[in-house]
Amino acid sequence: MLIRYGYELTFNCPQPTLTICLLDAHRERSQELRYETPPMTIPAIPTATYIDTFGNTVRRFIAPAGDLRITCDAVIADSGLPDPVELDANEVPVEQLPNESLLFLLGSRYCETDRLADIAWGHFGSSPHGWRRVQAICDFVCDHLTFGYEHARSTRTAFEAYQERIGVCRDFAHLAVAFCRCMNIPARYANGFLGDIGVPPDPSPMDYNAWFEVFLDGRWFTFDARHNTPRIGRITVARGRDAADISLVTSFGPHILKTFRVWTDEVDAAVLQELLSRSARTRAL
Amino acid sequence: MLIRYGYELTFNCPQPTLTICLLDAHRERSQELRYETPPMTIPAIPTATYIDTFGNTVRRFIAPAGDLRITCDAVIADSGLPDPVELDANEVPVEQLPNESLLFLLGSRYCETDRLADIAWGHFGSSPHGWRRVQAICDFVCDHLTFGYEHARSTRTAFEAYQERIGVCRDFAHLAVAFCRCMNIPARYANGFLGDIGVPPDPSPMDYNAWFEVFLDGRWFTFDARHNTPRIGRITVARGRDAADISLVTSFGPHILKTFRVWTDEVDAAVLQELLSRSARTRAL
Amino acid sequence: MLIRYGYELTFNCPQPTLTICLLDAHRERSQELRYETPPMTIPAIPTATYIDTFGNTVRRFIAPAGDLRITCDAVIADSGLPDPVELDANEVPVEQLPNESLLFLLGSRYCETDRLADIAWGHFGSSPHGWRRVQAICDFVCDHLTFGYEHARSTRTAFEAYQERIGVCRDFAHLAVAFCRCMNIPARYANGFLGDIGVPPDPSPMDYNAWFEVFLDGRWFTFDARHNTPRIGRITVARGRDAADISLVTSFGPHILKTFRVWTDEVDAAVLQELLSRSARTRAL
Amino acid sequence: MLIRYGYELTFNCPQPTLTICLLDAHRERSQELRYETPPMTIPAIPTATYIDTFGNTVRRFIAPAGDLRITCDAVIADSGLPDPVELDANEVPVEQLPNESLLFLLGSRYCETDRLADIAWGHFGSSPHGWRRVQAICDFVCDHLTFGYEHARSTRTAFEAYQERIGVCRDFAHLAVAFCRCMNIPARYANGFLGDIGVPPDPSPMDYNAWFEVFLDGRWFTFDARHNTPRIGRITVARGRDAADISLVTSFGPHILKTFRVWTDEVDAAVLQELLSRSARTRAL
Repeated sequence: MLIRYGYELTFNCPQPTLTICLLDAHRERSQELRYETPPMTIPAIPTATYIDTFGNTVRRFIAPAGDLRITCDAVIADSGLPDPVELDANEVPVEQLPNESLLFLLGSRYCETDRLADIAWGHFGSSPHGWRRVQAICDFVCDHLTFGYEHARSTRTAFEAYQERIGVCRDFAHLAVAFCRCMNIPARYANGFLGDIGVPPDPSPMDYNAWFEVFLDGRWFTFDARHNTPRIGRITVARGRDAADISLVTSFGPHILKTFRVWTDEVDAAVLQELLSRSARTRAL
Repeated sequence: MLIRYGYELTFNCPQPTLTICLLDAHRERSQELRYETPPMTIPAIPTATYIDTFGNTVRRFIAPAGDLRITCDAVIADSGLPDPVELDANEVPVEQLPNESLLFLLGSRYCETDRLADIAWGHFGSSPHGWRRVQAICDFVCDHLTFGYEHARSTRTAFEAYQERIGVCRDFAHLAVAFCRCMNIPARYANGFLGDIGVPPDPSPMDYNAWFEVFLDGRWFTFDARHNTPRIGRITVARGRDAADISLVTSFGPHILKTFRVWTDEVDAAVLQELLSRSARTRAL
Repeated sequence: MLIRYGYELTFNCPQPTLTICLLDAHRERSQELRYETPPMTIPAIPTATYIDTFGNTVRRFIAPAGDLRITCDAVIADSGLPDPVELDANEVPVEQLPNESLLFLLGSRYCETDRLADIAWGHFGSSPHGWRRVQAICDFVCDHLTFGYEHARSTRTAFEAYQERIGVCRDFAHLAVAFCRCMNIPARYANGFLGDIGVPPDPSPMDYNAWFEVFLDGRWFTFDARHNTPRIGRITVARGRDAADISLVTSFGPHILKTFRVWTDEVDAAVLQELLSRSARTRAL
Repeated sequence: MLIRYGYELTFNCPQPTLTICLLDAHRERSQELRYETPPMTIPAIPTATYIDTFGNTVRRFIAPAGDLRITCDAVIADSGLPDPVELDANEVPVEQLPNESLLFLLGSRYCETDRLADIAWGHFGSSPHGWRRVQAICDFVCDHLTFGYEHARSTRTAFEAYQERIGVCRDFAHLAVAFCRCMNIPARYANGFLGDIGVPPDPSPMDYNAWFEVFLDGRWFTFDARHNTPRIGRITVARGRDAADISLVTSFGPHILKTFRVWTDEVDAAVLQELLSRSARTRAL
């Protein structure tokens, strides 16, 4: 399956401002990209990339004073299969966890494991282990929180979401991540593109999505406490301990987001062909 | 497309020996795995994993004295599309290369850029830039070296391959990597599973394959100087500066490889279903 | 100057428990160690080490059920000079900060930059820049918080410390770190050994200390909002975003700390000689 | 003890050229720096830094066409004690080596462990283990190779040095490193400043020095096969697998080194004071 995805953001800075972005498909999927516009800004400015400690590719630039539009359009090859479900996947006994997974058991900015530990053990201490325990956490979170874009608050932590019982997809992910960590299951926060492939179209404007990954049977599996059902065509952008590590856009100075548009749709080979030949014509000019 | 792949190795150590292996699909493809046996050894021994400086997951264990069999069987979801060809992909001007790519311009154990620089500039200095220059390198290497399993020699470097004009797939990759680096195009060595999907079956026993990746237009593309044609269903295992970084098996002490079997085949959903239900039955026992 | 330092901890786990520790001098000072007992536990158990994403060496082991004592005694060579004071050290303009320092501008578990930004700009927006701004932050924090061991609370964040106006050395460090980050000065949390060398002896039992480091003029400088004066003989153990990253002891299961003793004293060459020859005699047995 | 060190290099590039340098004291010694000029170039050009995979801080810039001078002057606090000698330090049994040390057992560009393994076991297989084995390697290398600046050749490998029996300090280090790795003792290559403190002055112009480090008893110790005696005041600049990883200057394009001057001397507090006050006056202008 081919999926076309991309974004167009415009923001305004009163003065030149260092900005870092995590907006593009994770470079682990480099080999599956079939088309990608070069990083494009209006006005054209130089940008650079670096790899953060989580393996994400961060784009860094000085946003000039005034409006800056940043946009990308891409096509990626995907297997078209839904998120796997492995009911029998086991928890790795904590004493056998690999060193690099231990970081994902600790507390972080939005996942206060210290404050949620007793709550987690109360709810999930008697769940079956492994996949089923993570599923129990997703079921609980999906049921406990009421979703609403009007509930977005950038400082809300997992503990606050638990108490307030409202949130957006990032709150669902944060609470589930914190619960998993309390139960000694390494969990990391992820975000990316998720279109309405194979599900009824969602009328609200498309946005980046947040979900999470847990470490079972020696590898990382995707879970989504917000939609709480396997989905087709997730395109991961970045992973971290929580949203503090992988903001879409971080400006080290004030900025106003003026426009924001995201797309993620299945396309056929003809669309890809047309994009590629259009791009060849542009380069030839 | 679903691809079943795996391996079975038996080796014999005269005494307990620290061993590290890079045999499994790269964890960047975790999300696409649909089935994977747990790491399985006969006799059963504990194994651990860690991430090396290149992002590969290394398995580490003490091989006991005597025979040790290590085996894995897995099914992965794949888009089924051939390696992309982007004739217009550009070289990133060297002064704009990201920091982490510079390592892949330096010399390494089997890629002596210092000894090959003049040769590279002689052959490719007037080639068109970007994708076409890398393709010119692949064409040259594919033509210059004669492939033959009988030519395998674990100490052969790129410079020696250039002089001896013979080699196996790792020598093709080393020489192409070294040439790319000499031309200031970051290049890294990769190995993995590559079956005969979409090509006439190769009668020789299946083995791991070596290929390489180059950094163009801000991302890594796959090239294969040995087959020198886009292929379907590559499953990358590891990446490094050259083969010294990512041996399939490294024993810190003597060992003898007794059997070695690799498979990589397209399968249909029924096979996957059968593997999953068989595994569920085993766990239930 | 020679400094002898070490620790003795005893803790009790009801069952075998994965434990990770950050207790020893940072390996960046390997070359200055003149004596160090091997990692010693009673009962003797195997331990392993790994490097975390911040460059700290973490010791990992399975604490057995029952009491475990872990102890180390070491002598390190030190220049004997107090923490440097460079009043003219400048802030690196944010757009020139190196990539790896940006992590230390973001929020973290105990340093809620999002909640403290306006407060920070209110207090320090008109301070002189660079070293003097960091000093102004230390002066404020040192004055604003009342120190007291009875105020220790492991869940207290910088924002809470700011509101409650009490804390221990880690709260002083967290609040100063958060303020620095709000002012776009990279800041990281550090802990280690700090004896009473060159200052009147402190009658309270010796403990690990927390301080912090800021990035000025292209390198990291030590500040200490708790003592707020240059000190001699700091021996750094670990660095991280905040205390969540570098707990002295993290047990993935319940444990009780039963005894805890730390020492850090200047010694002369005769003491070192005696320790070395005692150790040689022990090995010879 | 205070040590003043620094360098002045001039090189000439026919055209603007990406250049990376490893010239300054390792940032692990940040806290001991008492004075350091900012990175200074003539003409003044922007430079940036990044951390490589070995933890070294690399300076990166575009050298303009024509001459570029790059210079630094610094004062560092040092304990003044010679390299430690711990005759009883043990080898860590290979199966207990930490993951991150295993890289330093593998072959690398200038250390062909595969070609030197039998030679190493022939010479050192019956040496006592641990410190004494590494000392035996140093004694052998120091005796086997004849030092001479006229013998410098940038492509010489450890195996070639072994055969040619000549070299400069980097060849001494490469051969000793390769031998240690063959004996399953992790070894890494280091370079830095080493003045004539405590030894008779060497009349030849001062240069950077190469030495190496081995992993014994769980930490890294310094050895120097060229001087083969403990020295005072080493200031490490960088560490890597071998010289290919940590060239002082790497230009991705042709360049000519026109002048090269290095200094490393003990100074007293008055000199430091004078440097600091001169620098304050300069900033005040």
